[in-house]
Amino acid sequence: MDKLEGLPAVPLTLEGAGVLHQMFRVRWPAWRALSAAEREAIVDAAAAPLGAMEKAGSAMFSLLGHKGDVMLVHFRKDFDALIEIEHCLARLRVWDYLELTSSYVSVVELGLYESSVRLYGSMGERKVAPHSPEWDAEIAENMQRQRAAMQPRLFPEMPPHRFICFYPMDRRRGEEKNWYQLPMTERQRQMQEHGEVGRRYAGTVKQIISGSIGFDDWEWGVDLFADDPLVFKRLIYEMRFDEVSAVYALFGSFYIGRRISRLAELLSL
Amino acid sequence: MDKLEGLPAVPLTLEGAGVLHQMFRVRWPAWRALSAAEREAIVDAAAAPLGAMEKAGSAMFSLLGHKGDVMLVHFRKDFDALIEIEHCLARLRVWDYLELTSSYVSVVELGLYESSVRLYGSMGERKVAPHSPEWDAEIAENMQRQRAAMQPRLFPEMPPHRFICFYPMDRRRGEEKNWYQLPMTERQRQMQEHGEVGRRYAGTVKQIISGSIGFDDWEWGVDLFADDPLVFKRLIYEMRFDEVSAVYALFGSFYIGRRISRLAELLSL
Amino acid sequence: MDKLEGLPAVPLTLEGAGVLHQMFRVRWPAWRALSAAEREAIVDAAAAPLGAMEKAGSAMFSLLGHKGDVMLVHFRKDFDALIEIEHCLARLRVWDYLELTSSYVSVVELGLYESSVRLYGSMGERKVAPHSPEWDAEIAENMQRQRAAMQPRLFPEMPPHRFICFYPMDRRRGEEKNWYQLPMTERQRQMQEHGEVGRRYAGTVKQIISGSIGFDDWEWGVDLFADDPLVFKRLIYEMRFDEVSAVYALFGSFYIGRRISRLAELLSL
Amino acid sequence: MDKLEGLPAVPLTLEGAGVLHQMFRVRWPAWRALSAAEREAIVDAAAAPLGAMEKAGSAMFSLLGHKGDVMLVHFRKDFDALIEIEHCLARLRVWDYLELTSSYVSVVELGLYESSVRLYGSMGERKVAPHSPEWDAEIAENMQRQRAAMQPRLFPEMPPHRFICFYPMDRRRGEEKNWYQLPMTERQRQMQEHGEVGRRYAGTVKQIISGSIGFDDWEWGVDLFADDPLVFKRLIYEMRFDEVSAVYALFGSFYIGRRISRLAELLSL
Amino acid sequence: MDKLEGLPAVPLTLEGAGVLHQMFRVRWPAWRALSAAEREAIVDAAAAPLGAMEKAGSAMFSLLGHKGDVMLVHFRKDFDALIEIEHCLARLRVWDYLELTSSYVSVVELGLYESSVRLYGSMGERKVAPHSPEWDAEIAENMQRQRAAMQPRLFPEMPPHRFICFYPMDRRRGEEKNWYQLPMTERQRQMQEHGEVGRRYAGTVKQIISGSIGFDDWEWGVDLFADDPLVFKRLIYEMRFDEVSAVYALFGSFYIGRRISRLAELLSL
Repeated sequence: MDKLEGLPAVPLTLEGAGVLHQMFRVRWPAWRALSAAEREAIVDAAAAPLGAMEKAGSAMFSLLGHKGDVMLVHFRKDFDALIEIEHCLARLRVWDYLELTSSYVSVVELGLYESSVRLYGSMGERKVAPHSPEWDAEIAENMQRQRAAMQPRLFPEMPPHRFICFYPMDRRRGEEKNWYQLPMTERQRQMQEHGEVGRRYAGTVKQIISGSIGFDDWEWGVDLFADDPLVFKRLIYEMRFDEVSAVYALFGSFYIGRRISRLAELLSL
Repeated sequence: MDKLEGLPAVPLTLEGAGVLHQMFRVRWPAWRALSAAEREAIVDAAAAPLGAMEKAGSAMFSLLGHKGDVMLVHFRKDFDALIEIEHCLARLRVWDYLELTSSYVSVVELGLYESSVRLYGSMGERKVAPHSPEWDAEIAENMQRQRAAMQPRLFPEMPPHRFICFYPMDRRRGEEKNWYQLPMTERQRQMQEHGEVGRRYAGTVKQIISGSIGFDDWEWGVDLFADDPLVFKRLIYEMRFDEVSAVYALFGSFYIGRRISRLAELLSL
Repeated sequence: MDKLEGLPAVPLTLEGAGVLHQMFRVRWPAWRALSAAEREAIVDAAAAPLGAMEKAGSAMFSLLGHKGDVMLVHFRKDFDALIEIEHCLARLRVWDYLELTSSYVSVVELGLYESSVRLYGSMGERKVAPHSPEWDAEIAENMQRQRAAMQPRLFPEMPPHRFICFYPMDRRRGEEKNWYQLPMTERQRQMQEHGEVGRRYAGTVKQIISGSIGFDDWEWGVDLFADDPLVFKRLIYEMRFDEVSAVYALFGSFYIGRRISRLAELLSL
Repeated sequence: MDKLEGLPAVPLTLEGAGVLHQMFRVRWPAWRALSAAEREAIVDAAAAPLGAMEKAGSAMFSLLGHKGDVMLVHFRKDFDALIEIEHCLARLRVWDYLELTSSYVSVVELGLYESSVRLYGSMGERKVAPHSPEWDAEIAENMQRQRAAMQPRLFPEMPPHRFICFYPMDRRRGEEKNWYQLPMTERQRQMQEHGEVGRRYAGTVKQIISGSIGFDDWEWGVDLFADDPLVFKRLIYEMRFDEVSAVYALFGSFYIGRRISRLAELLSL
Repeated sequence: MDKLEGLPAVPLTLEGAGVLHQMFRVRWPAWRALSAAEREAIVDAAAAPLGAMEKAGSAMFSLLGHKGDVMLVHFRKDFDALIEIEHCLARLRVWDYLELTSSYVSVVELGLYESSVRLYGSMGERKVAPHSPEWDAEIAENMQRQRAAMQPRLFPEMPPHRFICFYPMDRRRGEEKNWYQLPMTERQRQMQEHGEVGRRYAGTVKQIISGSIGFDDWEWGVDLFADDPLVFKRLIYEMRFDEVSAVYALFGSFYIGRRISRLAELLSL
């Protein structure tokens, strides 16, 4: 019998920065129809607010392919700050020349599977009743401690790498293969195996996981940053053979882009 | 043998307010092309009808992401009143600057699984034939009583919280896992387990369930209201491990927004 | 052994009126850009042809939600008459202000499962070879008789109720659960059970089934008419627990609307 | 053991005419905005090239429903000729008033299941090694002979019937039910059963099958021609109970239209 | 027991040229609205940059069907060069008359299943621990050697054939049939069988496989080049009966086009 049977199935999870991905297509005919002077004025007027955004945790990427010409990625302290970004962008004249083709709303997340197995197991042995005041207090204390220790990972700086790869994903809930019905110890085992692959790429790829249950149409968003885009393919391909990916991962659209520092890089004709 | 075998499978269900969700994108280039005076006149002309709508049970939300800039949520006594809203909005000049990107039509619903098990069980023991006049009368009397008692939940006030999370959902009818083929007592058990998770969040999240079978493309709509949007994620993630969600829930798109009181908050440039 | 084994699997089916559903969105900005006089002239010019259509078996509904502002439903003697409607509408100036967002093409249909079981069974006992002249003649005679008897249901009047609910549906052909591989007696049994639920709603809901195999993307269209739209939900929800729906029904989009008698009700500003 | 085991699984297949289906919506507001004289000039200018196309194996249909106002169907000797059609159409002024909403690219195909079973079986008995020069020569000789005999079916005339029904389809490759893993003799048996239904409709329906593996998003296209459109429904409904359709057929969108001889029938206001 | 059990499951994979497919529709009404002189000037201005692109590894195709009028295929040394192409194209005036309808981002890839089985097997027998420095060094050395030998296949010239067929594909990860859970020796066996079919077509079809995990929405892209487009159908149909395709291949949209050397071939009116 699984020692965690009868205990909560949801792992301890820490939340950090609010994250907004925005994908845009440039309305080229309308943009080109402007005089050079007007275009310059519009780009100039956007430079300061976009520069301020970048200082506050945003970055701009030139996307490859038809899904968009540019992607903005924003890390902020909460959703209020993300909504302010949207309102600020809508007030820029350049907004009329950008068509929002997609977006993703999420929150930086650390799933503490190892801690969950340990802490639930320990409280289970000590017969602490789930959701009792004692249970809740012990969990709150543990989360508080981990939240403090992991502050830099919960509110990350924008990684400095040249390339980004973003995609959303779900855990499968099939009629036979259902992630949410696996015992926690089994999920923890699979996540650990998965993490070992990631650690071998630690020097070349920076990964930021964000949770989007309740916020967007997939359960998680994954951002990878690297200077060489080929490592995205190698990492994800290798991981696809992990049980947790092979059986339980469902993927949405993939976005690949290269960092740019100013809109003018893209919009100058 | 299940004591409810051979009895009706559909649970007693109370209906209340008609509900309409409307998601809009602002046509920014056309809006910005207007003079400041025209924009002000258009917003001013919309203020009174929108204010009256709010008093009558509507609320306005600034959406996060590309699915829309604004969402209107309307609770009304019936569908006639919802149709009047649509006709009223179409007559406003601001309507020309709003593009309806999505919507959802439903009716506030309370599924009385516990009462159904109790009442069907009792009538079954007493050999009352399903759909006989006696059966129908007893059910009508029970529903009438519950409808009176639950009036405030059937015709709810718009909750005052800052954030909203809306999503539609289905119960799975897979080839092997089929909600509609489970015995009622099993469905009742799973719904009760599910409800227990919800009750632990009662202080922080207000939930309104509406039914949309026959009205829209999913079977139910779920509205969550809270001041801290992170609790949406925590609640839904925890619930996803419940059997009724893990196995039987299929989800549509998720919409997340923050309450605004006037269109001008969004449309002022 | 099933007494119908080896006999044709397709049930006897009568066809009646050609049916066309057309869903439209109003192009509000273009419409509002017209002068009041122009709008009046356009609506006036459409009044006579639309009135004639209504007399010939058409009705107009104001739709709830973003799928469209208006739905036209046409019952006609054949597809030629439906094509004439399309050509006639395209010639109206108001056509430029209506965007066709969806449609559905079908034929009123009565699936004679009971007769099929009886007739095939009787001919089977009498060793009449399927598709022999004798077989064909007996079927033709039977169909002729039923067609005459059911003329009013095959070429129905537009029901006078205030609300309509329309949706298309398929019978499931899953890898394990496959409607088209069930023996006819089993299909007949499930359809009969299904029909019993419908009969309990006979006083409040009028149902018209049309077949669309070969004509549109789903196999059947269902039109429900009632004065109280809540009965749509109650009927369909109750039916969803029937085996034939729980296991074998797949549904497309649902459209809900309220009858209007003149376009001006919708288009007047 | 199946006598064809170890032999090639792909049936002998003859290819004939290249086929292009093009579905269009008329841009009514732009078309109506032209003067009557301009419209006449544009239609006149298109009459000769469209007339020439018709002589060369094309036909025009007025579609029912929102998927398009008109469908062009072209049979030509090869893909080069189809590309010429596209370039020719794009050069017509009327092209600006037609919006291409869909299309289908395929090649008239005859799948020779019976011959394959016979020929493979015979060569298998004679121990001819698959893909050996002897094997290839015998197949080439057989195909050559059949190609000559079936020339009229491979390069068909446009049938003269009033109505067309077009739809694309796949053979299912499910996890359990997989057409491409059935033994050839089993596929041959199912295709033959299927063909028997078709033959009973031979007098009223003309069927042209085209293959689109490698050319478009489904594996086959099916064109049915008849004077009475109801026979499309009867034929396809009856076939849906065949094992090969019930279990192994997946269908795309259905298009139904009536032959027109000149664009002016549609475009005159 | 499989001798590769416990060893890495991901095959050795070589990457070469970055690949970008771009599908466009011509904005015919806007293009035709230009004067002949303007059109000529725009086409002339595009000739030099497009000519330079062709010299650098690009080709232009006239597509059949509504998915696009033209497809550009670019092979380049890396993603930076592909991004430069996008920026260069956006600066051309002709860009305003081309609507990007789809695209595909990938990297030429050679999956070395045979080498993987041999090398992993050999190191496994010698008890070299996976991911140890010794393991990594031996693999790096092997890859380096093969990369050098296969340079022409990794950075291919644009094949000179008249026709192209492009489609993306996935390997199935079903609940029961899951490519990523097969032992490597089994995957190697199926890929080898698959390759044998391809080799029989070697003289008539040139195939270039590119990997897109992490870059686009499918796992691989397949480009086929041939002078006779019918061989695409024959090759893919025959392969569809291979176990690796029948069971494990899922396909996206298919694009078929004919090489053109200058945009003017398409755009001249």
